[in-house]
Amino acid sequence: MAEGLRERKKQRTRQALFDAAMRLFAEQGYERTTVAEIAAAAEVSTKTLFNYFASKDEMVFALREQRMNLVADTIDERGPDDGPVDVLARIAERLLADALVGYGEAGLAFTAVPVRLAMTVPELQAKALLLMFDAQREWVRALTKAFPDELDPLTAAAAVGSLMGTLQMTALASFERGDSSAEIVAHLRSVVGIAMNGIRQLERS
Amino acid sequence: MAEGLRERKKQRTRQALFDAAMRLFAEQGYERTTVAEIAAAAEVSTKTLFNYFASKDEMVFALREQRMNLVADTIDERGPDDGPVDVLARIAERLLADALVGYGEAGLAFTAVPVRLAMTVPELQAKALLLMFDAQREWVRALTKAFPDELDPLTAAAAVGSLMGTLQMTALASFERGDSSAEIVAHLRSVVGIAMNGIRQLERS
Repeated sequence: MAEGLRERKKQRTRQALFDAAMRLFAEQGYERTTVAEIAAAAEVSTKTLFNYFASKDEMVFALREQRMNLVADTIDERGPDDGPVDVLARIAERLLADALVGYGEAGLAFTAVPVRLAMTVPELQAKALLLMFDAQREWVRALTKAFPDELDPLTAAAAVGSLMGTLQMTALASFERGDSSAEIVAHLRSVVGIAMNGIRQLERS
Repeated sequence: MAEGLRERKKQRTRQALFDAAMRLFAEQGYERTTVAEIAAAAEVSTKTLFNYFASKDEMVFALREQRMNLVADTIDERGPDDGPVDVLARIAERLLADALVGYGEAGLAFTAVPVRLAMTVPELQAKALLLMFDAQREWVRALTKAFPDELDPLTAAAAVGSLMGTLQMTALASFERGDSSAEIVAHLRSVVGIAMNGIRQLERS
């Protein structure tokens, strides 16, 4: 098999496993879903599943790298006239747009599944919070490096913390009252706008 | 021994243990300090220490209850003309003032030790983040209950998340560049003011 073909086949299997996991987690809950069921639903062996994901919780956090790259790319692709607040607003916008895009055939209904699980399943919460904390540190570093003259590390930290803290708690409140994925994203859109107003004042200070 | 006297003696021992732990953690690091050393520094046996604190990490989080009560009291003691933003601003102010008050004889130099450890020692981070997350949920609930007509759960979540996210990341950035406790609190004071400006717009939306 040619290298490119093999790579595409691997990508498809990975996506099928991810989609099956998200569907089963959404339908019957995270705890009650076994890796054997996920493998069966994706029509592969459990052994094959473990070639792609070391554990069930790794599937929940599978989109993290993609999201980290999205933020890094947004910072890298800034224009000459963009200030830190413009870039931060674009990061928020893209993270939310990304949350709305269907992953494979799972579609809209399942897009918020990983975030929902990470915030509401006790055994996933600690890891999710640590990953989110590390992500924010990374974004503070990247923003400070991209805007050495406009942004000191403390202001960058305050801005990132404010934005992500707002998103995190609003998403949780929205999950907890049973909102749909589309409703959650709509709420997040509206609070981001407001958080960004606060951050704009940070920049002027 | 009379009940009140016994209670005061217990309080003093607990405080002595806490102070000794904070001093040793600050001087030689969290990982390198043993419970036996803490007990010796407080002039009690290790067995006595375990009557007060089940583990070393419990000492780091010993002030949590006090801080939760401080927030609950601030909400309960609101005046008839206070809106949610006034109460939130007062919560932030009291949390920072609380961080500046010396605990027992440890004084200013050690006050930020528990927060610093919780944010920078890997084995404490996950627990610290979970406790902080739970605290925020609790504050969102309490604020929503206190202001049923002015505040919906999503707006309360956005406000609390924004404020605490700002404080958390700014404190971390300030710790990481080696600021003193007084400097850290000064930085936090200044970013709180800005976060509150953003939150004020949330209320009007």
